[in-house]
Amino acid sequence: MSAPFAAVAIVGLGLIGSSIARAIRQSLPETRILGYDRNAEVCARAEAIGLCDSYHSAFGAELAEAEMVILCVPVGAMAAAAEVMAPHLSAQAIISDVGSCKASVLTALRGALPNAIIVPAHPVAGTENSGPEAGFASLFKGRWCILTPDAGADEGACARVAGFWQALGANVETMDAAHHDLVLAVTSHLPHLIAYTIVGTASDLEGVTQSEVIKYSAGGFRDFTRIAASDPVMWRDVFLSNKDAVLEMLQRFSEDLSALQRAIRWDKGDELEELFTRTRTIRRSIIEQGQDDAKPDFGREHQ
Amino acid sequence: MSAPFAAVAIVGLGLIGSSIARAIRQSLPETRILGYDRNAEVCARAEAIGLCDSYHSAFGAELAEAEMVILCVPVGAMAAAAEVMAPHLSAQAIISDVGSCKASVLTALRGALPNAIIVPAHPVAGTENSGPEAGFASLFKGRWCILTPDAGADEGACARVAGFWQALGANVETMDAAHHDLVLAVTSHLPHLIAYTIVGTASDLEGVTQSEVIKYSAGGFRDFTRIAASDPVMWRDVFLSNKDAVLEMLQRFSEDLSALQRAIRWDKGDELEELFTRTRTIRRSIIEQGQDDAKPDFGREHQ
Repeated sequence: MSAPFAAVAIVGLGLIGSSIARAIRQSLPETRILGYDRNAEVCARAEAIGLCDSYHSAFGAELAEAEMVILCVPVGAMAAAAEVMAPHLSAQAIISDVGSCKASVLTALRGALPNAIIVPAHPVAGTENSGPEAGFASLFKGRWCILTPDAGADEGACARVAGFWQALGANVETMDAAHHDLVLAVTSHLPHLIAYTIVGTASDLEGVTQSEVIKYSAGGFRDFTRIAASDPVMWRDVFLSNKDAVLEMLQRFSEDLSALQRAIRWDKGDELEELFTRTRTIRRSIIEQGQDDAKPDFGREHQ
Repeated sequence: MSAPFAAVAIVGLGLIGSSIARAIRQSLPETRILGYDRNAEVCARAEAIGLCDSYHSAFGAELAEAEMVILCVPVGAMAAAAEVMAPHLSAQAIISDVGSCKASVLTALRGALPNAIIVPAHPVAGTENSGPEAGFASLFKGRWCILTPDAGADEGACARVAGFWQALGANVETMDAAHHDLVLAVTSHLPHLIAYTIVGTASDLEGVTQSEVIKYSAGGFRDFTRIAASDPVMWRDVFLSNKDAVLEMLQRFSEDLSALQRAIRWDKGDELEELFTRTRTIRRSIIEQGQDDAKPDFGREHQ
């Protein structure tokens, strides 16, 4: 297969941006990679590990070479990044991104680049680590990448972006931005919010010390600390940008939690057991569909 | 080191009971293992994999050989198990258990066995799997085992039980049962309750299909499905047996969640970022203290 793009610009060289660069090197070696990060120190670190073909802490004439520009910055920073790159873009360039919220990003990009070809994307993949050193080439393999083009989007451009993500190992799905934001509110945003909350709750107790929380975390708590170690700025922006869907899911979660609280208070063991039996089957489906490791304990190493 | 006990009876051959049997075989090979499970089919499965030296679906005269009896049944089943074993126990036997709640178990065991030497224990370790095939010898290595003897407990007996768990690779800590129940409410019981809740919430949506929840679960949701796949009866009993501490922690969690909800609604990005930065440091401490894998994504395999 010939590469969908001769040159790709990656704007933001963190976990996702650097993983895209590595995946391009591995799967599309003929594609040139222009690396951008407004933090010159991040550019230097990316250069030290040879992520891209060139490194830039500001946009210049070289950007016109890029046939696709992928914004890999926090969703709250998309509009500003799009504005400063605008004068240097090729008119034929496809503008894409990797943000976790799509309606707000589409609005931001459309506002900053009214005439551009825009194909928003969200690869549903990541780890709790940040920075150019944290990425790896296989991050997107077997994961889903969701495209959310608006009604009048260029079909040829959508197909090229889909082909690009498939070349990196992802499965591609297309849906409208509002539906994406609702789906991700439950599969990603609410879990992060709850994980941040419980880790905060546990660190604020007066009857139990932080040292005890850490020592006995293998009882279940440590699972939540992983996603609660994700990038603070990225996640601040996600919650503010997908406010309506997050608040809606949070309301449903709180109602369900209150119902369980009541079942415990009133000794309704049958209700608890019925729910706990039902939730087992979802784990099984996730494993069957290749979205998690079948090994116990996520495959954590035991000595 | 000579083995702390010449013969140990394991009552309940599930994940924890079968892991103890395997760990004894590996670390204390001279210790005889009497295996009990009231489900004869479970006894047969345990025998098929050679877990113990003998297998029994009811208690009989052979139990008198056991110098320690470890109850590995759901905490709600401890009293009944202790009652039926009582006539067959040696007067010198130490009675222990592995339950996740200690105050209720101590009361149940004391009630059923008023004159026995009782040293309750809780190895803080496990996986989401159940049954005799799910166990493994290294489950307790580097994990903490908490002993909760009551005020008048036999010190020699406590030291022997501590030595037993250390021989299996665990670190041993002693605390009173009420404090244990408060600590575990936050490090284990509340995380499980929240995981069960969110998995239930996600499976009950009308605007998002179950298939979508599964496909996009790598955004964070899949992490919660692991502990929500834990044994339903065991966890039903935990919540009912540690009701007060669980309801107290749940109340604190709900307050903190409401505060975050409000911060999102009113665009208080600084509050969100402050919390999200603070929670990162706890993950780091857990890894530094060897209570979780330092590898990203729990060391999940990426292709």
